[in-house]
Parts: sequence; C-alpha cells; structure tokens
Amino acid sequence: MHQIDQTHDPQLKSWVETANDPKSDFPIQNLPFCVFQQGDRIPAIGVGIGDQILNLRIAADKGMVGDEFVESLQANTLNSFMSFEMEKRLELRQLLSSIFSSETSADRVAVESAMVSQTDATFCLPCRIGDYTDFYASVYHATNVGCMFRPDNPLLPNYKHIPIGYHGRASSVVISGTEVRRPVGQKAPAEDGGSPTRSPCALLDYELEVGFFVGQGNALGETIPIEQADNHLFGMCLLNDWSARDIQKWEYQPLGPFLAKSFASTISPWVVTMEALAPFRVPALIRPKGDPEPLDYLSDPENESHGGVDLKLEVLLTSQQMREQSLSPKHLSSGNFTNMYWTIGQILAHHASNGCNLQPGDLMGSGTISGTERESRGSLLELTWDGDSEHPLPGTQRTPIVLPTGEERKFLADGDEVIMRGYCENESHRRIGFGECRGIILPAV
Amino acid sequence: MHQIDQTHDPQLKSWVETANDPKSDFPIQNLPFCVFQQGDRIPAIGVGIGDQILNLRIAADKGMVGDEFVESLQANTLNSFMSFEMEKRLELRQLLSSIFSSETSADRVAVESAMVSQTDATFCLPCRIGDYTDFYASVYHATNVGCMFRPDNPLLPNYKHIPIGYHGRASSVVISGTEVRRPVGQKAPAEDGGSPTRSPCALLDYELEVGFFVGQGNALGETIPIEQADNHLFGMCLLNDWSARDIQKWEYQPLGPFLAKSFASTISPWVVTMEALAPFRVPALIRPKGDPEPLDYLSDPENESHGGVDLKLEVLLTSQQMREQSLSPKHLSSGNFTNMYWTIGQILAHHASNGCNLQPGDLMGSGTISGTERESRGSLLELTWDGDSEHPLPGTQRTPIVLPTGEERKFLADGDEVIMRGYCENESHRRIGFGECRGIILPAV
Repeated sequence: MHQIDQTHDPQLKSWVETANDPKSDFPIQNLPFCVFQQGDRIPAIGVGIGDQILNLRIAADKGMVGDEFVESLQANTLNSFMSFEMEKRLELRQLLSSIFSSETSADRVAVESAMVSQTDATFCLPCRIGDYTDFYASVYHATNVGCMFRPDNPLLPNYKHIPIGYHGRASSVVISGTEVRRPVGQKAPAEDGGSPTRSPCALLDYELEVGFFVGQGNALGETIPIEQADNHLFGMCLLNDWSARDIQKWEYQPLGPFLAKSFASTISPWVVTMEALAPFRVPALIRPKGDPEPLDYLSDPENESHGGVDLKLEVLLTSQQMREQSLSPKHLSSGNFTNMYWTIGQILAHHASNGCNLQPGDLMGSGTISGTERESRGSLLELTWDGDSEHPLPGTQRTPIVLPTGEERKFLADGDEVIMRGYCENESHRRIGFGECRGIILPAV
Repeated sequence: MHQIDQTHDPQLKSWVETANDPKSDFPIQNLPFCVFQQGDRIPAIGVGIGDQILNLRIAADKGMVGDEFVESLQANTLNSFMSFEMEKRLELRQLLSSIFSSETSADRVAVESAMVSQTDATFCLPCRIGDYTDFYASVYHATNVGCMFRPDNPLLPNYKHIPIGYHGRASSVVISGTEVRRPVGQKAPAEDGGSPTRSPCALLDYELEVGFFVGQGNALGETIPIEQADNHLFGMCLLNDWSARDIQKWEYQPLGPFLAKSFASTISPWVVTMEALAPFRVPALIRPKGDPEPLDYLSDPENESHGGVDLKLEVLLTSQQMREQSLSPKHLSSGNFTNMYWTIGQILAHHASNGCNLQPGDLMGSGTISGTERESRGSLLELTWDGDSEHPLPGTQRTPIVLPTGEERKFLADGDEVIMRGYCENESHRRIGFGECRGIILPAV
C-alpha cells in the first residue's frame, strides 16, 4: 500500500484559498480526478482543488507535467492514465501538490489560466467503463435482505467464503445529475394465481454503494494475488445502484438481477485516488468468532491490517414539493464503508482468481452498505422494513418515512432526488471528500 | 424484416471461383463481415467471399464504396458501421454483391488487389463489445438443467413469461482460436460438512450458443418496441459460453453465475448479417398448448411469423491424442437454432423494455441450444447425463462419451479442442455458413 507522505501533511496549504476551508471536500491533500466539459468543448481530464478544476489537458499542452504523462492527460477519459503503476501516479500527485502549494511558483499564472470554476463545468463519466461488476459485500445488508425472504436462513452457505458478485450493465452507468427514468417491467402474478403484469416499477429504491475503479489490469488467464491487489486499484467514487424491487423479485431466479438494475446506476463525478485515501485505511472488519477463515487466496495479514477505508457516508432525499418549498433535504441514513465483510482487495483478488481480465477503468460496486443499526441501513428496502435479524417480520410490513412536507415514502416517488455524500475525516488529517452523487426520478414513459 | 432480393438469387455466381463451390460457407449470397490482421498491420474490416477476404479499408481508401461508408469502413472495428440503419447496410450489400458478380467490372483488378486469402489472415474481435448479455432461451436446455437440480419442478414459474438473461463479462470474450485457460475456483464443501476448497475446475464444459450483435442502439430511458426489434439487429455468430460447472454450483446463489463464466467466452470471427439470413427466417417455435401467451410487449404476429432462424449447428471435439494421431474430430451433437422458446426479437425487446440502452456492437448470447433429442443437447452437462425430463435421474449419474482413441469424457480434459459449426441450408437458396468457433483447453496455472 502507498505510504503516507508529505502530500498528506494537514498543515499543507494551497494558494487556491477555497481549498483551505476545513469544510472543503477538496483540500490540497485530496486532488481527485474528473472528466468535465466547458460548454460544448471536448471533454478534458481535470483535477479538483477547492471550488476549482485544473484542466489537465491544458496543463499537459503547456508542458507542466512530465513527458510520460502528456498523452494520457490529453485524452478525454482517464483510462490511459489509470493504467500507470501506482508509483508513477504518485509522481503526478506530488507534482500537483507542489504546483498548488508553492506560493512562489513561476508557473502560478500559467496554472491559473488553465483553471475553471467547478460551477462552470459539466461533469462526464470519468472513463470508459469496459465492465461493471456489483458485489454484495456488506454482511448486514445481506442479512437484512435474507431475513425478509428466508427468515430461518438469511445468509446462504457461500456468503462467508466468497465475495458474492455479479456482472452489471456498463452502458447505463451515468454521471451524477443525470435524470433517471422510472423503469417499466414485469411483476409476479398475484399469489392466488393469474398472469404476470407489466407496469411502472412501484417499489423503486436506491442502494448506497461505493464504487472503485481498476487501475492496472491483468492479462486474460492470469490472476491478481491478494498481496498485489492494492496496486491494481485506482480510486473510488460514490455509487447509487438504483433497484426496481418488484421487477427484481420476479425476474431474478435462477440467473440473478437483470432489468431490475440495468436501467441506471449513478456515480459521483470525482475519482478519489487510493493515494489520497492512504491516511484513512483501517483494519478490515473483524470476523465474528466462529466465522470461517477466508481461503488462502483471499487471506493476507497486510490486507487485513488496512483493508477497510474509514469513509463516512450519508443519504438524503428531497421530494419535488420539498424543493418547491426550498426545504432542506431529509436525512435518511448514515453509514460507514468499514462495514464490509469483504475488503476491496479481497474483491479484486477474487474477481481475477479465475483468470478473468480486469482492465483500467473497470468499475466495481461494493454492494449496499448497511451497518448494524437501523439508522445505517443503505436502502429503503431495509429502512422502511419493520424487521431486524433478531425479530424478522414478513417482508411486506413497512413503516413509511415522513418528509417535512408530510409526504410519506416507503419507496421512491417521481420527482424525488436521492443525494449521497461521502467523506473521510479523522483527527490528524484533512477531510477528504467525495462530493455528491445525485439523481432525480422521472415518471415512467 | 429485410425482404429477399436479387442478392439471394441462388443462380448468382462470383468471379471468385471458390465462392461458387456448393459446399463453401461463403458464397456471394453470404458476404459476412470480419475484422482481421495481416502480419502486424493495423486490423481492418473485411468481407468474406469463398476462401478470400476483401479488405474494406483499402476498398474505402480507393473510393470503391459510397462516401457515407468510407469513414466507418476505414475503422478497425465494426461498431461505427453497425450503427447504420438496415436500409443503408443493404445498399452496401448490394454494391458488394455487384462488385463480386460483375465479370466485366472495370474495377475487378483494383478489387483483386485489395483481397487476401483467409489463410493469411489473423482474425480479431469484430467490434468493441460494450456489454455482453447471455440469455437462457432454449426451453429444452432449461428443462434439462432444471431436471438435474429440481426434478419435481424443473422450470421456474417465470420461465415462460420472461426471456431470462443475465449480464456477462465483455472483457473475456475472445475470438475463435484463442486458447482457453482452465479456471481455478472455489468448490462447495463436501455434503457431510467441512470447508470449501479451491482447485482447478473439474467439471469444465462448453455451451453451444448463437451470439447476435446489436446494430442501431436506443437511448437510455427509451425502449425498442418488438415491431422494430429486427431493425436493431446487425448479425449473428457462433458462441461457446465455456462453463465451470463446479464453480458455478457453489457461487451462483443468490446473484447468478459469475466466475464460472467470466474466464472466457469464444465467438466465431464472421458476423453473418441479418440481411444474408433473410431466406432462412422461419416461424418461431410454436408454444405447447396450455403455455401462456407472451405479454403484449413481447407479442407481434410479424415477429412470430419469422422469429426463428433455420440455422443448423454442430459440436465436435478432438483430444490432444486424437490430433497427434490425425484422427477426425468426434461429432458430439447437432442442433438447430429454431429450438428457441424466445426469439431474438423478443430477447432484444425485453432487454430494452426497462429503458436499458443497447449500443452498436453489444453482444447477446442465446443460451445453450438444446433440442428434444439426446443428440441435440448443447453441453456436456446434458449430453453425458443419464436423465431426461420424463425420467430424471440424480444429477451426478453420467455415462462418458468414448473418443476414437478409447479416451472417455464426462467433461473437458486439458488439450481438448471444442469446434462448433453452423450453416443455413434449404432447397431454394445457397448455403450460408458461419465458419467455425474453436478453442483448446490449456491446463490450469
């Protein structure tokens, strides 16, 4: 894993004043990447600092970065840059840190001329996502969902041995702010018989997830040993894995979720690098006594010692009425990415363990992040459910969430906007923020 | 659907003599596309005829095709050309048909100078596959597999209402001839308890499938009505969906197959266009009495009238010993693509029915193609199984296939080569062949 160095020094300040605000998501210690557009210009790679973006294409054109990075940073996706080794990426991080901190830099005027306000930018997907894979790595989420459908036996026998995952749809991954059309689909026949029906999803849900991007890939037929998994990770983002629960329930046997997921998955625009997250790596979740040890290919003391990321997460919601009345978003839940039964290193090593080739820019989702408390449940399916693993109730019994307007929600209504936020924060380091992941639900066609 | 026109005239001959051989897969009536390389040159789009390939980049450079096609045909993947409307593609088909048939063409010398022998070409993937989705559309396959695991209730209640499918892995789709490394993975604990183990797949299998490529796509949030589905199809190929049965059995609940499939999927190099297949479109499989009618969005009399493709398929195998002794491949099974419960039009309409955006070059697999007879079972899982839907036996009882060397196979051994072939043939039209889909199994690492 990347060591903590001077780029993480909490005393380090930038001449970009807004980056020095302690509440900023984007201090000089962060330096997340994005792809953005100004007006109708060609998308460019940028790095965020304070309320600004440095256009890295212009920086590359003007010779501000090392020759080896020029071509990658002139591209309109991050894929080529993602394929660099972590050591190389670190060189660029150190250079950017120095550019933004050095008051006396002769280049400051040139750098400033390549900067744009974040409010003047339109964000694009940060890379071409060759494949998107979604996991199921929160044992609390898996237990909650299992309790609803199999109260006697909520966790399947493979759960504690395998980081369960499935292939997702890459084409419908969209950037924060993209409106999401409520899907129409087949629902199961009534329990007393009859035919299935097709109608707009009535149980539309979000799932609070973290996404992570593959950096360097592996060749087909080769594996990624868990000891090397961190070297193949580029960075992380927020992910809303929208879910149509009624469509899912009817379609998912025997081959897994399909149209219940593939209508849209929203990611936040900033890719926070693994280098920036180094000060927030914490030990992996301690397996309860009696749980099996992971098999050798998923086991590594080094990985266990820093397998977690202390990333705080929250979900908020505004209805259309709330926005019309300028009311603040309703807080729905808070969570932490440390609540993962499987680490991102284990997930990556497992994914490549059969020789499957991972490629720069591939996206993996953690699965819904839920904790032990009701307040930390990462989906409406869990939040409005009246059961828990000790006292499971029938899956349909639900208590709605009441919004400040008096509106009630068991699942999402048209016009609802779901907002996810995430940030790392501890006493000895600057806050590393992820920004926001947003999406408004449009009515079904 | 595209009408049958003079390009299908069985009397039409080409000056490429090998195309006139009645046994050729590639008569002038076929004109399938591929992407190929000569030596270390940049991959080019080609069209196959007889034992030759016309390099369409050179043809485009020399002005042999309409201006509107030039840029697409100079590319090194078919994606851009795939996005043309069917009417436009048909114009190119008619032009190519005329180029290859006209004895007196002044261009013949120029055309010949842009041709290369198929034996001098190395084939590449025909396009960038943005997403790969695999279906489960043969009711006989679904019933066979269901009988092994659920003898009392082989078909799940959704099967006859939904074309069941799941997202696959795009990065590991490889071209015919690519060696396939036997995957290593987790297997279930013994039935009397214990821990799962990780070892090379012991139940390695092939699945005989047909792949089809999306042509024009649809925007996210929009659907493709079944009446228009044919206009969004570009063409078809053979697909071997390699499967690790022991890995699959342990991992697939509750989210579907994952590492059991993602180590490799092999496709044949030629994309046979829907235009070429027009004379072989036949009515969809007649649903047995008592089966439910498809819901409206999957129902279209026009689609039913030509929803099938009369495509004959066969699977052959050679072991390393057989190749060393120069023995002919062992014929394992024969099938026909008409044995599909769901048509490709229904599959496409269903896939986009939730607003999921399909893109030019996306690949869909039919699912294993099995028929009613033992001889038409499209996987070793089914072929060596001693049961049938009337008399299901425990899933583990298997009678091996005996090879000419005396070797026995219940599943694939290292060094085995699986060969799939496909062709359309009827009394009033020339044979339209698909070529071959091949892959040799390498030992696990």
